[in-house]
Amino acid sequence: MKTVELKDNERIDELQRNGYRIIQNPDKFCFGMDAVLLSGFANVRKGEKMLDLGTGTGIIPILMAAKTEGEQFVGLEIQRESAQMAARSVEMNDLSHRVRIVEGDIREASSLFGCGTFSVVTSNPPYMRDEHGLQSENPCKAIARHEIACTLEDVLREGAKVLKPGGRFYMVHRPFRLVEIFSAFTGQGLEPKRIKFVHPYIDSEPNMVLIEGRKGGGSRIRVEKPLIVYKAPGVYTDEIYDIYGY
Amino acid sequence: MKTVELKDNERIDELQRNGYRIIQNPDKFCFGMDAVLLSGFANVRKGEKMLDLGTGTGIIPILMAAKTEGEQFVGLEIQRESAQMAARSVEMNDLSHRVRIVEGDIREASSLFGCGTFSVVTSNPPYMRDEHGLQSENPCKAIARHEIACTLEDVLREGAKVLKPGGRFYMVHRPFRLVEIFSAFTGQGLEPKRIKFVHPYIDSEPNMVLIEGRKGGGSRIRVEKPLIVYKAPGVYTDEIYDIYGY
Repeated sequence: MKTVELKDNERIDELQRNGYRIIQNPDKFCFGMDAVLLSGFANVRKGEKMLDLGTGTGIIPILMAAKTEGEQFVGLEIQRESAQMAARSVEMNDLSHRVRIVEGDIREASSLFGCGTFSVVTSNPPYMRDEHGLQSENPCKAIARHEIACTLEDVLREGAKVLKPGGRFYMVHRPFRLVEIFSAFTGQGLEPKRIKFVHPYIDSEPNMVLIEGRKGGGSRIRVEKPLIVYKAPGVYTDEIYDIYGY
Repeated sequence: MKTVELKDNERIDELQRNGYRIIQNPDKFCFGMDAVLLSGFANVRKGEKMLDLGTGTGIIPILMAAKTEGEQFVGLEIQRESAQMAARSVEMNDLSHRVRIVEGDIREASSLFGCGTFSVVTSNPPYMRDEHGLQSENPCKAIARHEIACTLEDVLREGAKVLKPGGRFYMVHRPFRLVEIFSAFTGQGLEPKRIKFVHPYIDSEPNMVLIEGRKGGGSRIRVEKPLIVYKAPGVYTDEIYDIYGY
């Protein structure tokens, strides 16, 4: 494990996978359960290349490098400070040969990387549009949560372009936008093939949805059994512990 | 309770609601749990008019007449034998003032009833397209299960036409067609506003989905908590007993 420089208010958190750790700054944005569950839902096969659109701290490429035999993981992030922090996490974990962080705009992903270059795209995009709830006054959090720097359509359009035919797009989002999400996927030639709802408790409505789309796939979707987060207040289910790697 | 004539192989089943009963013929088609769960999911308010597209035995209008204060319930059925059987069930339950069975083609519903005439439309349509599984050699069962006499698009187009602005369309269908279903709803100006998945067991994938669309509604959907059918093999959950009216 290499030593890296930490900036003001940054901290190092354990990831429970391969001894990997990640640098975060709670004043800016810390990764959430969403990103971890997306990493549990997504799959990268041996030798495949993956692109994470809006990588933030780099959590998704680092976790996917830990749990799969994928060859190359690229994280694209528009916020310089986050991109630099993610790059330092990659270096700290000695992952520079497999994970690369690129500072740039999701809306230019296909220009940056070329079309048809990845087998897998992942994204934990901002969930909210203008009219959905208050925007954070903290610009880092606002960009991560609200569609300021990119829209759902931007993410899917660029993701579809950089994917090879038959490539998979994995996204985590909020259930209340499911109709829009399906429409945006199919509008870009990505057929939703698999979804899984995440429920805080077994008897509550879902607050997250995990979606796998396939470029050029046929129309038939598998709705998986629900993922339940807590079996009692503050007590995670075994499935959550398993995804977190404990 | 009036007496009615039964034909060969017909039988009378109790509905556990208001003492209502229904005539069925197991050689043709008996209603399934799908229709009962749709009746539990749908809502008709006092004074509203409802149309059921492809009513079969008339189970949905009869159950909705039992559980709501709706004014008028119309069931449209293309198969003469089913329509006549449904009409006899209406008569047997003394419901002729509230429930009317019409023999006719779903594809002509808006010509038969006029546009903007109903507050609510329900449908338990055929689930399967040509390529989905074997067709029954029994023509009654084949028409009820496969898109022979009408397609999903036909049902939604005609349903959307007969609905008033703001009217609700309630449908039960199979989860594997969810992407098509959402697209077909929105394509007819019906915004999916509420869905509920039905799972045989708490840890199994859903095998039915209940959907409420609103004519001219805005884009935001509520995914409700799942409906679980069995708590143990052969033992229904309390929620199922409640929907069945026990």
